[in-house]
Amino acid sequence: MTLEEARAALMKLQQRQSAYRHAMDLIWYDGDTVAPKGTAANRAQSLAILSEEAYHLSTGAETVALLEFLDERKPELNPRERRMVELLLKDVRRLQKIPLDEYSAHERLIVEAGDVWERAKAASDFAAFQPYLERLFADAKRFAGYCAPEKDPYDYWLNEFEEGLDRARCDEFFATLRAHVVPLLAKVQEKEQLSNAMLLGHFPAADQERLARRLMALIGLDLEHVGLATTEHPFTASLGSHFDERITTHYYEDYLASSLYSVIHEGGHALYDTNSADDLAYTVLDGGVSMGVHESQSRFFENLLGRSRPFCEYLFPILEEIFPEQMAGHTAEELYRAVNRAEPGLIRTEADELTYPLHIMVRYELEKRVMAGELSVSELPGEWNRLYREYLGVEVPDDAHGVLQDIHWSGGDIGYFPSYAFGGAYGAQLLRRMRETVDVDAALRAGNFAPINRWLREHLWRHGCLYKPAELFERAAGEKFDPTAFTTYLEEKFGELYGIEQETFL
Amino acid sequence: MTLEEARAALMKLQQRQSAYRHAMDLIWYDGDTVAPKGTAANRAQSLAILSEEAYHLSTGAETVALLEFLDERKPELNPRERRMVELLLKDVRRLQKIPLDEYSAHERLIVEAGDVWERAKAASDFAAFQPYLERLFADAKRFAGYCAPEKDPYDYWLNEFEEGLDRARCDEFFATLRAHVVPLLAKVQEKEQLSNAMLLGHFPAADQERLARRLMALIGLDLEHVGLATTEHPFTASLGSHFDERITTHYYEDYLASSLYSVIHEGGHALYDTNSADDLAYTVLDGGVSMGVHESQSRFFENLLGRSRPFCEYLFPILEEIFPEQMAGHTAEELYRAVNRAEPGLIRTEADELTYPLHIMVRYELEKRVMAGELSVSELPGEWNRLYREYLGVEVPDDAHGVLQDIHWSGGDIGYFPSYAFGGAYGAQLLRRMRETVDVDAALRAGNFAPINRWLREHLWRHGCLYKPAELFERAAGEKFDPTAFTTYLEEKFGELYGIEQETFL
Repeated sequence: MTLEEARAALMKLQQRQSAYRHAMDLIWYDGDTVAPKGTAANRAQSLAILSEEAYHLSTGAETVALLEFLDERKPELNPRERRMVELLLKDVRRLQKIPLDEYSAHERLIVEAGDVWERAKAASDFAAFQPYLERLFADAKRFAGYCAPEKDPYDYWLNEFEEGLDRARCDEFFATLRAHVVPLLAKVQEKEQLSNAMLLGHFPAADQERLARRLMALIGLDLEHVGLATTEHPFTASLGSHFDERITTHYYEDYLASSLYSVIHEGGHALYDTNSADDLAYTVLDGGVSMGVHESQSRFFENLLGRSRPFCEYLFPILEEIFPEQMAGHTAEELYRAVNRAEPGLIRTEADELTYPLHIMVRYELEKRVMAGELSVSELPGEWNRLYREYLGVEVPDDAHGVLQDIHWSGGDIGYFPSYAFGGAYGAQLLRRMRETVDVDAALRAGNFAPINRWLREHLWRHGCLYKPAELFERAAGEKFDPTAFTTYLEEKFGELYGIEQETFL
Repeated sequence: MTLEEARAALMKLQQRQSAYRHAMDLIWYDGDTVAPKGTAANRAQSLAILSEEAYHLSTGAETVALLEFLDERKPELNPRERRMVELLLKDVRRLQKIPLDEYSAHERLIVEAGDVWERAKAASDFAAFQPYLERLFADAKRFAGYCAPEKDPYDYWLNEFEEGLDRARCDEFFATLRAHVVPLLAKVQEKEQLSNAMLLGHFPAADQERLARRLMALIGLDLEHVGLATTEHPFTASLGSHFDERITTHYYEDYLASSLYSVIHEGGHALYDTNSADDLAYTVLDGGVSMGVHESQSRFFENLLGRSRPFCEYLFPILEEIFPEQMAGHTAEELYRAVNRAEPGLIRTEADELTYPLHIMVRYELEKRVMAGELSVSELPGEWNRLYREYLGVEVPDDAHGVLQDIHWSGGDIGYFPSYAFGGAYGAQLLRRMRETVDVDAALRAGNFAPINRWLREHLWRHGCLYKPAELFERAAGEKFDPTAFTTYLEEKFGELYGIEQETFL
């Protein structure tokens, strides 16, 4: 094999892997969106087989020989090729350690668990989901043991979702957050609550869908390549490459803000994915680099941009146009205050910026303890409810509004949640940096996302997975991660909104 | 390899093939239903690769050795296994003859052609579609040459869609049909036309969708396993196995009958597929055996049952319930007459039972001549229009209502259309046979499809692909194919509807 042949084979390998990924992700997407309700076992059958086929492709002797051949010639490769080989070899090493039968059984399990979770959530029936969740945690522990026996299993998964993350970094980060958020929230609660009455009422789903498509175009998504569907739990998926992206939302007809901000949130994910450099398509470098950076983009659009005063000034007339009766007598400033009402609640995805990290901390605590064997899965609902009482001061009425609310665990994504909180915190530093060269407020006030997206494309999006998350972030932010940028942002924003003296935070 | 090991490997092979089929069919389904408009090239990329992977699986040395091993031990296999080996080997022999690069280029072509066709139809722009159609016909001829060099290429494809079919049988069948249908239609046109005014008006898509789901349940579909979506052109797809079936429809808000009967038509396909014996799932024997038998079921439900007087008696009160204003002052008998209005028109899928075969004959003539090199693709629009004038007496205003109306050619399905006409004709014999033991009219009048479906399940559906189409049909009908059963049915039905003396047909 010559180097040129190996280079071509490297691209072909990734194209094949992308096709399998397309197939499997689409089977998932279909199941979450339009598939008839009784078809989960059929999907599980196909996914188990396709994941086996993809496993053989990724770990086969021919693939390993190719990657090792290229790995030995690293100096002759360009930076992209080097990173491809590095990521592919990492994947091979991981897959080689997991027995094939366990790997495909796990693929089957997560389809079935997703189906059971959906029904269990609808019926608020944790007992129905518990045996699946037990198997999912068991798989997470066992797979971590196979892949990194020297590591704590939870540390292994934290690092999988966000390279460089472990419990020590999480503990430190969450301690900083708590030290700022808890007293700030206490001050907020002493004040008169902001009214969100204008967001409550009747907002027909069809009108919300019109708004959703308008928002998608407004923030800069290419609707020829980004689709919208409705699901129980909003998410974003790339199908095959960044040329086909889907976001989903859920319309609550009695509450406008939910779909509105979920569309902007998922839209942020989709902007990140679809703005990978086009020649990264069908390679492992295509799309977002990590869950943390991904969440930094989605939460950046949702909160730092979408819940800002200048954006609300632009958004309000659009809402007036689509919902003239519901908006009558209200103002943009009222909208700004309504979408920033900070109130401890039960549901993570509905949480405001201030209380959101507390929801993550609950999940982090619970995952950490179950993974360490300090807590059994059967004890999760009780502990969930206890921590919501302790951290957020709310009583969980049933498991549908408690431990069953999130889709993640049903998909085996244990160790994912902390990346949401890190992502949220990354955004504050990125915004600070962006403001040095972009008049962000003026752009938002004009509904002109072009200069914002240009900055993000230049510094983050186009690179795909070329750099490690921390390196990418530091290149864009111009400094190391510093959670106080985020806590300062919260203190300033909510201090102003609730009329709290800044000194009280010192 | 022991025989038992080979048997297990045979099942595993088919499961793997089913998973690839699931993936590819779902990518198609997604493209036709919800995918963003700009994503066809991305699907083409994945389909080309997945079809290559499936090709390697189906033609690989290991597979061929397995099938030949089993083929040599036929006497020791059960009938199902024998048929599996026969069908799989036939597929291998065919695939081995098509060069892989041409095979996967064709897969890519049909995705792109489907996309171009949709846009060309919308713009009534045949010139945009012509180069693709030329390549599709060229592929059809070349592939037929590879697979059966001794055969006429069009005969090859006719036989692929319906085992046993060739031009001679088609010519004879269509001559019989013409001899009966043309004079009958002439008599009908001398009479006063039946009114379909009650089907025209405003029928909101959302209400039609409610009706569609009700009809699906009514005819016996299991909605836990059969989904409904909207597309430009209605179709039915099995995804992975008969446990996940999808039908699609298109709502015209100004015309009720279109979606109503397309749902019953596609519902017939779905009933056939989903009633394969469950232990045929994930084998090549799962689902309908041929296009002809498939169309016999869809057209059976659409026309022989769905457009019958007793079914209209049951259906009318449902329409009254969903469309009270539009149905006010009308009767079930008027509905029966409205849905059986026989009138030469432009659009095949909107055609009545009587003129439908004429639409097929146009397509058959044209395919036959293009495949024989007697007609160029560029001449198709002109010849299409000329034949519509000759056979149906209508003027084609533009290609969207002419040569561009059907999806089939864009998918490379050349030789498919005749199976519609044969399927329609099969149904009349099946109904005659069914009436010997089932009181079909009483069942329809009561909206009770159970005894009808029980008969079809017993005699047709459960067998999947176990028997060849002709054998399956003859077992069910209790006699050989006889097109006069169909022409007699038409003469009796339309004779009565239009008050034509029966003797005039002698």
